[in-house]
Amino acid sequence: MNRPPLDYLIDYLRFPSISTQSNHKPDMEACATWLVDLFREMGLEAKIHKTKGHPIVLAKSAKKAGKPTLLIYGHYDVQPPEPLAEWTTPPFEPTLRDGKLYARGAGDNKGPTLAHILGTKKILEEGELPVNIIYLIEGEEEIGSPNLEGFIRDHREELACDIIAISDTIMPANDWPTLTYGLRGVAAMELTVRGPERDLHSGIFGGAVANPATAAGRLIASLHDEKGHVQIEGFYEDIRPLEKWEHEAFANRPSTDTDFLELTGSPILWGEDGFSTFERVGARPTAEINGISGGYQGEGTKTVLPREAIVKITFRLVPDQTPEKILRLAEAHFRKHCPPGVTLEIEHGHGGMAYFSDPTTRYGVAAKRALKTAFGKEPALIREGGSIPILHQFHDILKTDILLMALAAPDVQAHSPNESFPVKNLESGIRLHQEFLKELAAC
Amino acid sequence: MNRPPLDYLIDYLRFPSISTQSNHKPDMEACATWLVDLFREMGLEAKIHKTKGHPIVLAKSAKKAGKPTLLIYGHYDVQPPEPLAEWTTPPFEPTLRDGKLYARGAGDNKGPTLAHILGTKKILEEGELPVNIIYLIEGEEEIGSPNLEGFIRDHREELACDIIAISDTIMPANDWPTLTYGLRGVAAMELTVRGPERDLHSGIFGGAVANPATAAGRLIASLHDEKGHVQIEGFYEDIRPLEKWEHEAFANRPSTDTDFLELTGSPILWGEDGFSTFERVGARPTAEINGISGGYQGEGTKTVLPREAIVKITFRLVPDQTPEKILRLAEAHFRKHCPPGVTLEIEHGHGGMAYFSDPTTRYGVAAKRALKTAFGKEPALIREGGSIPILHQFHDILKTDILLMALAAPDVQAHSPNESFPVKNLESGIRLHQEFLKELAAC
Repeated sequence: MNRPPLDYLIDYLRFPSISTQSNHKPDMEACATWLVDLFREMGLEAKIHKTKGHPIVLAKSAKKAGKPTLLIYGHYDVQPPEPLAEWTTPPFEPTLRDGKLYARGAGDNKGPTLAHILGTKKILEEGELPVNIIYLIEGEEEIGSPNLEGFIRDHREELACDIIAISDTIMPANDWPTLTYGLRGVAAMELTVRGPERDLHSGIFGGAVANPATAAGRLIASLHDEKGHVQIEGFYEDIRPLEKWEHEAFANRPSTDTDFLELTGSPILWGEDGFSTFERVGARPTAEINGISGGYQGEGTKTVLPREAIVKITFRLVPDQTPEKILRLAEAHFRKHCPPGVTLEIEHGHGGMAYFSDPTTRYGVAAKRALKTAFGKEPALIREGGSIPILHQFHDILKTDILLMALAAPDVQAHSPNESFPVKNLESGIRLHQEFLKELAAC
Repeated sequence: MNRPPLDYLIDYLRFPSISTQSNHKPDMEACATWLVDLFREMGLEAKIHKTKGHPIVLAKSAKKAGKPTLLIYGHYDVQPPEPLAEWTTPPFEPTLRDGKLYARGAGDNKGPTLAHILGTKKILEEGELPVNIIYLIEGEEEIGSPNLEGFIRDHREELACDIIAISDTIMPANDWPTLTYGLRGVAAMELTVRGPERDLHSGIFGGAVANPATAAGRLIASLHDEKGHVQIEGFYEDIRPLEKWEHEAFANRPSTDTDFLELTGSPILWGEDGFSTFERVGARPTAEINGISGGYQGEGTKTVLPREAIVKITFRLVPDQTPEKILRLAEAHFRKHCPPGVTLEIEHGHGGMAYFSDPTTRYGVAAKRALKTAFGKEPALIREGGSIPILHQFHDILKTDILLMALAAPDVQAHSPNESFPVKNLESGIRLHQEFLKELAAC
């Protein structure tokens, strides 16, 4: 009855649980059922919760008073495997090559989630759980978790916990224990620059009226100086300075600019003067143009003076910037810099604060210790540039901190053909889980 | 046998000679045949010349040595009449209301062309033509005259002439005799700013690599200073200064900024500091952005850092700027101002010199005298902002100057529903033609 962990992962990866393709609805349900059966086999109380979309699997150990409660979040849905022709072996026939298991969802997120589950399983086989544990495994992460927030809200008492752990981030280098303690926030804005009532003939009228596309270019150019500093007044004023340990963590990050450059496919790395690449991404706010449009965009030439131009912008935020204030400052900046002859419409989009989970708290320390023991080396403490909106849903509703402990390395090819998960990482994940529970119990 | 001129125009306007709609091919041929019949009835030698598209009508008086030869160009094709619901009376049932004949093609260009033809007819009815005359009436002006250049080239000896007259421009005000002596040239350029190999996640990568849309904005902003002066080094250096009479002509232009603002539907008129609106349009070169695109352009937000951004630009040129030099200077400017971290691809598009027909030459003076006599007031001498490519085809192949004498006023609604042509303009056009031939003969 003692099946090796890899066999479980192979079973789990066989489900084509593609959340975005409606024909896979039965596969989603079968995959959720498989999880519930596994949890029950381990001795947890487990249940499928229907949502408007794909079901959520919730599993719990019998609650013991006096023990801290850990909630582990993961997702059983996967990205579509297309283009199929680029897979060496079929995406839903898990195949072992060179120590890695190849299948869609292996690294994102079935392998990491299952490492935790099998860690719990191992502890239970050997004795008793040192903490109370709750698993929340959803089936809609790859489509933006539309039903997760409502579920957390409706089940907030059942989900009450002391700490949340998620293994859905990426290590900066292979086999490197990693605690991601910071992610950037976001604030979105759209500018519509309007001029004439309709596209005008640029010969007949050009010179006599302001061109909205030119005005849009001037607004874009007003955002940064030549050294990449954002020129919005007050933009940088709420930034929490880096602690000493953070400077050290940035310096010790186990990946290089060369690695990062390769990921971008850009000619060179370039950014705000005075900061390293990883500081620019993790510790500095940015103003990025996401899209521009206006006038004629087809092949060749059309001599129009466009009636309007649109600029889509997102700001990435760091602690303690707030989206509200940044959008307010940005609006004032654009109003001030708008050239004559056009009107400017400014729309404020979605926003979210940066995520920051202090790794010097007792739970942070517990995570670091467990990572060190499980991997045999000092964990990297990193800040990443992206945003994970669900963290805020968990944090705001459950009032709990979240620990992001990566189990996947950059080469897992998440969302791409030939996704994989190293057997070694499955094993270190199981170890990490066991160590983490021990450390938590001692908190 | 002496039908009134209006009856001829009504007949001419009844043909739905829509060049862009292939189901109207028989109407095109019928309309060309009608013209040939009219020319023959008048005593000219006339012929339909087939092209790959719609036929060209060529008519000539018997050539007399010692007399100057005038070529008159016009077009018998019209724009589609859609949207039909907006016409008060059907577009191909010419209707007289308030002294105007309403029909598609009335102002552009059947009315003005027919005024010349009926002017010739009247002279011939009364005696002999004081000059040799050639009519070239094509059927593809509204679709870009694809077969005209080849025709002129193939028939250059037959088309040899001393001066060309065209009535296909617009007067600045109703009933105002107008000689358009200048049109701007054009030079097109497309910039492609490239950064990463693919659209990147603006959170994960934002800050570490240059953003092509930001770079495009900076390039656009580099084009002008805050007062609307083009910042390309050498851009203005070949401009031929305005003559004294030109300054006067600009000052006396019989239309106001308010009229022009209304045509644009822009919030205000705005342009290069130090020049009037009509100078900005007629006598100053411009750098207009025709289109911008890059990254996400759909609804809402997509947090990408775009792989590329595209900027389409056309420069409008005045004498004696050349498209080649302007594109060369612009390329140098953009190369110099391209921000770090992106690559810049520059494509040179089509170009053409400005048109300038000196109204102080003997033919210019003849036109001005005829305009004054026919309309009873001093003609406006104007430069317009657009470009008419066929002028260069005539000029370059036949080595002849072209006189642009407008017969349509701004309210003819060319290309729009309820196009019209005032009966009065038909009459003044006939008079103009008679006077012009007299003046030419005396040159």
